[in-house]
Amino acid sequence: MSAPISANVGTALLKGVLSPAVTPFKADLSPDTARFSRHCTWLLEHGCAGLAVFGTNSEANSLSVGERMDLLEGLVASGVPAARLMPGTGCCALEDSVRLTAHATGLGCAGSLMLPPFYYKGVPEEGLFRSYSEIIQRVAHPAMKIYLYHIPPVSQVAITRSLVERLLKAYPETVVGVKDSSGDWQNTLGFLEYAKEGFQVFAGSETFLLQNMRHGGVGCITAGANVNPGQIHEVYRRWQEPEADALQAGIDKIREILQAHGPMIGTLKAVIAAYANDPAWKTVRPPLVEAGPAQAEALLQDLRAAGFTMPGLV
Amino acid sequence: MSAPISANVGTALLKGVLSPAVTPFKADLSPDTARFSRHCTWLLEHGCAGLAVFGTNSEANSLSVGERMDLLEGLVASGVPAARLMPGTGCCALEDSVRLTAHATGLGCAGSLMLPPFYYKGVPEEGLFRSYSEIIQRVAHPAMKIYLYHIPPVSQVAITRSLVERLLKAYPETVVGVKDSSGDWQNTLGFLEYAKEGFQVFAGSETFLLQNMRHGGVGCITAGANVNPGQIHEVYRRWQEPEADALQAGIDKIREILQAHGPMIGTLKAVIAAYANDPAWKTVRPPLVEAGPAQAEALLQDLRAAGFTMPGLV
Repeated sequence: MSAPISANVGTALLKGVLSPAVTPFKADLSPDTARFSRHCTWLLEHGCAGLAVFGTNSEANSLSVGERMDLLEGLVASGVPAARLMPGTGCCALEDSVRLTAHATGLGCAGSLMLPPFYYKGVPEEGLFRSYSEIIQRVAHPAMKIYLYHIPPVSQVAITRSLVERLLKAYPETVVGVKDSSGDWQNTLGFLEYAKEGFQVFAGSETFLLQNMRHGGVGCITAGANVNPGQIHEVYRRWQEPEADALQAGIDKIREILQAHGPMIGTLKAVIAAYANDPAWKTVRPPLVEAGPAQAEALLQDLRAAGFTMPGLV
Repeated sequence: MSAPISANVGTALLKGVLSPAVTPFKADLSPDTARFSRHCTWLLEHGCAGLAVFGTNSEANSLSVGERMDLLEGLVASGVPAARLMPGTGCCALEDSVRLTAHATGLGCAGSLMLPPFYYKGVPEEGLFRSYSEIIQRVAHPAMKIYLYHIPPVSQVAITRSLVERLLKAYPETVVGVKDSSGDWQNTLGFLEYAKEGFQVFAGSETFLLQNMRHGGVGCITAGANVNPGQIHEVYRRWQEPEADALQAGIDKIREILQAHGPMIGTLKAVIAAYANDPAWKTVRPPLVEAGPAQAEALLQDLRAAGFTMPGLV
């Protein structure tokens, strides 16, 4: 049923469950490196193969280039191995994407998860190809590995299959995978056609993890892994076993609860705040708004009723 | 018919025709300060009351914070008065918007044209209010003047009337106007209800200039003014004269031609390249793509047939 993943893109590539780690802020809204490192360490100790720091659910686009670089350096300095990091580095401005990608690559990160420039809408594929091309040529680092980030509900700028084909042809050693956050399984199946050539397809939600593994994908990069990494990792680890469907149903149930109580970032932070007994975690940056007390309480009640835990935190 | 504009927000505010000046790039895609200053000077000498540099049509979101600050300083150093500038300063990241707004205000710019943070979609009004609030409180400069930038077709994040009301109530000395690039005249009429309190409403296209003036607006901030500032200024200058409708029809005709030949930024740069006899002007930054030769030729033929000129360039 599943296509084996050839290893022609190298053996150091991450696969499994990656978390777009949420970013904690202090009361003055500055990034909180100490809490960030603690959370990232907990994630790696509880099922995450890697961390897609500075993703959509990390509020990365609410951070400046300097803030992202400082946080990443702080994370590595705290002992989180760079080889387990896949930071988001795609910005609207060419120079910003180049700086962040060069910085992440230079630190030894496993790869960069790269949004297309997302301010201008309806741009031609040629323009997006040139954008990725310019970044790759300017960074010009042999260790650079780029994952394309397809998240049309937010970016409104799509990574099409024909764009993937052009980039794979032009930069086969550099463009190594995609995260599909379209929420459209048919679209993921389209990307999976390149999997047999070693192209790494990550589902953008644990909802599609088992399906993705069965069709040649390599795992998922999912917001839910911020709070439920262990259970999600079990689906990844045991996807070929008879229990796989039951395990998938278990993580689907938690995901449904997480999505039922307001926008995901506020929800994830409310859950961490509660289970780590650390209210400071609730803070989000504008334009987002933190989960309110009633909203958080209803969410936590549903999670407790479903037997949800965050081992090692409480 | 028209409501007079009271002056309770100060007399140094810009009104009339403002151009979101297009940004020239060198062959290596770096910003070209010399060409930029020449173009801006030409605009001010040929009908523009001010320059909304770093707008959507300036490819501002394809520029880093440092590139914008360098260009702005270069412009002022070249002799363009800061008092005639209204740079775009709204970014996704709080820190970036604060830096750019503080920089523009410190240089003596007339105001800042501020996009809402535009990565996250469907954010609550409360989050947008907090975003503008944080910027205003962090810049904390008495001379700071903010124009809200409503351009939902691109930003996908709207400036609603209730957001305007909250901001006007909280920051009456700072939030002084809006640019409405919705393309929806009914929406502009909604903003114009605040005009009698001194709130400055700029139409986002010359198409709505005469209507806007007749309903209490103060002018337009329009891409078309990059190439046709003089004719557009005539509509502004003579809006109360019997010829106004005929003058408006004249600028509508040129605008139609500009819009009929592909995306606006490539079009504007192709026109400047041709009339200034300076092919380097054609360059755009990815993800945009420059106008092709056939496209440019068809455009220029239509413009010539309509009697279009750029005085002082050819």
